[in-house]
Amino acid sequence: MKTRAAVAFAPNTPLEIVELDLEGPKEGEVLVEIMATGICHTDAYTLSGKDSEGVFPSILGHEGAGIVREVGAGVTSVKPGDHVIPLYTPECRQCKTCLSQKSNLCTAIRATQGKGLMPDGTSRFSLKGQPIYHYMGCSTFSNFTVMPEIAVAKIREDAPFDKVCYIGCGVTTGIGAVIYTAKVEAGADVAVFGLGGIGLNVIQGAKMVGADRIIGVDINPGKRAMAEAFGMTHFINPKEVGADKVVQAITDLTGGGVDYSFDCTGNTTVMRQALECCHRGWGQSIIIGVAEAGQEISTRPFQLVTGRVWRGSAFGGARGRTDVPKIVDWYMQGKIRIDELITDVMPLDQINHGFDLMHEGKSIRSVVVY
Amino acid sequence: MKTRAAVAFAPNTPLEIVELDLEGPKEGEVLVEIMATGICHTDAYTLSGKDSEGVFPSILGHEGAGIVREVGAGVTSVKPGDHVIPLYTPECRQCKTCLSQKSNLCTAIRATQGKGLMPDGTSRFSLKGQPIYHYMGCSTFSNFTVMPEIAVAKIREDAPFDKVCYIGCGVTTGIGAVIYTAKVEAGADVAVFGLGGIGLNVIQGAKMVGADRIIGVDINPGKRAMAEAFGMTHFINPKEVGADKVVQAITDLTGGGVDYSFDCTGNTTVMRQALECCHRGWGQSIIIGVAEAGQEISTRPFQLVTGRVWRGSAFGGARGRTDVPKIVDWYMQGKIRIDELITDVMPLDQINHGFDLMHEGKSIRSVVVY
Repeated sequence: MKTRAAVAFAPNTPLEIVELDLEGPKEGEVLVEIMATGICHTDAYTLSGKDSEGVFPSILGHEGAGIVREVGAGVTSVKPGDHVIPLYTPECRQCKTCLSQKSNLCTAIRATQGKGLMPDGTSRFSLKGQPIYHYMGCSTFSNFTVMPEIAVAKIREDAPFDKVCYIGCGVTTGIGAVIYTAKVEAGADVAVFGLGGIGLNVIQGAKMVGADRIIGVDINPGKRAMAEAFGMTHFINPKEVGADKVVQAITDLTGGGVDYSFDCTGNTTVMRQALECCHRGWGQSIIIGVAEAGQEISTRPFQLVTGRVWRGSAFGGARGRTDVPKIVDWYMQGKIRIDELITDVMPLDQINHGFDLMHEGKSIRSVVVY
Repeated sequence: MKTRAAVAFAPNTPLEIVELDLEGPKEGEVLVEIMATGICHTDAYTLSGKDSEGVFPSILGHEGAGIVREVGAGVTSVKPGDHVIPLYTPECRQCKTCLSQKSNLCTAIRATQGKGLMPDGTSRFSLKGQPIYHYMGCSTFSNFTVMPEIAVAKIREDAPFDKVCYIGCGVTTGIGAVIYTAKVEAGADVAVFGLGGIGLNVIQGAKMVGADRIIGVDINPGKRAMAEAFGMTHFINPKEVGADKVVQAITDLTGGGVDYSFDCTGNTTVMRQALECCHRGWGQSIIIGVAEAGQEISTRPFQLVTGRVWRGSAFGGARGRTDVPKIVDWYMQGKIRIDELITDVMPLDQINHGFDLMHEGKSIRSVVVY
């Protein structure tokens, strides 16, 4: 069949809208009509050429929502007509990691996914007979895409695609880090470094589970109002208190430090502050942000010996097929908010404008609708 | 009253055995006759002058066992005749940390203890009218000492002092890191970096809770036999496999990495290896060793984002009054071994010889008996 898609032909060039050939789903695969997709910093990172695993030409996009249109042999968990969210972190429920029940980082298709291929080692996309690679197992910048059955989460049919697509990455990454990775409990004090989309979702996750103090840290005071609307109780601007005084400011404010902190910046200097503002004895710091290649985190081991814990979170620690449908429910029930975070909606042929808005800091989340 | 003690008059000088004046216990304090005390690297560290918190002249020693001889006003939890182990990490059961139930790092007397003083801000020891400072709230290198009631653990009376004194620090630090900090479960794979006294106790803790692979790492092959006797199942010598190949060797051996690793070296380069040999998704690394001042740990944040957890342990995460008596029971029941670890026993006037044995690597634990 044919599909319209935005193709990344080479690093650091605009995406090009073209009509591609798409092979139908093979055994264990499903064909999904993407109805909406967010534009995420990770797409931009790969497009920039800095991602050492980036493969070109490829179809980027990993934060989508759509409808199953066809299933391959042996597919049992979804059927044509089902609404789904693509999962760049699949959930096979069979691999060592899934069975450990300690991690969401399913390894069933990791090797081929990292190479831009389907599990059988080939691509379903092609242009004039030349293969175009998949991306993060999703390729949501295409109106139709093919994915393994284990990489789609079935969701309720009344959920609006142009909102819940954001649950495919940013919402789950932020809220999940609070709920599944840190397991923040009611009454806890929380610090959130970086008040972009991820930070706002961390904040609303912390609010949802009943955190007491929710302290936001950002050098941009313009982010304060939205963060407060989402549940932030205190705001610290490192440019006002001094970058080297942030830890002390948080320690003073909380009488010893926070119970949980979250880095949503990707800045390794900030990651250290996020650790060191945790309470002696039990404070846990969760790294969410992706650092630049080669950057390292450091601290004195005494910080850990005296009880702080340093950990990280990918896709919010969420198991895609199990937890993503619940997060969709929470949105539909009004327990979490997404609408205000979708700052721009555009058709596919304006996708490069969506990237521009993100780079210019003018959007929280831009969404493409097909 | 008078007591014989080994006094550290100045950094980096031998201890001097003298007769001191000791004031009796004030309110909430107890007088303990120390019957035996181990000599620990931490005593040597402070004596060397490198410990920025070290105070002189003082009476070192923090790993003892003895008998309560007198109690001050208001003391209710122990009485004269009770056998006890002094606790450099007290357990007040009233402070924010104790009540958190998340940490053993009781803060009730931290400020004064760090200054070498009793909670009322004075010292009970003096020589010719000049105060001699306490050390880690214990000062077990004195035949008699005074401590707060919250800093003694009451133990069974049939436990031999010259063995269970080691539970006052080394045994609990190693076994507790396994049981209380990491909470190692049966079937887990474990790596232990450094096979000195702490490492051996980590090993026997891991064996006690049913770990599968217990991998020891040490550059000294002479430590292999004892470690195997304590439960080590595999030995890796970085000088044989190459220091930069240790992580790969452990990953290969375990099919992906260990579930828990323990640094018992204090070397920050080794601490990084200990983290990075943990299994993706869930492996936890626990820092036990004390690093030199100014040294820092580093890693790529990707190590944490993909599920590894970096934490530390002090006094094995054990609550002194609650957990130390249990560890004594385990020794008396034969669940853990101490006898082979006590490599030398000597009277107080040979204590400097005990330090020499430790510095020369000729002892696992030297014990002074009064």
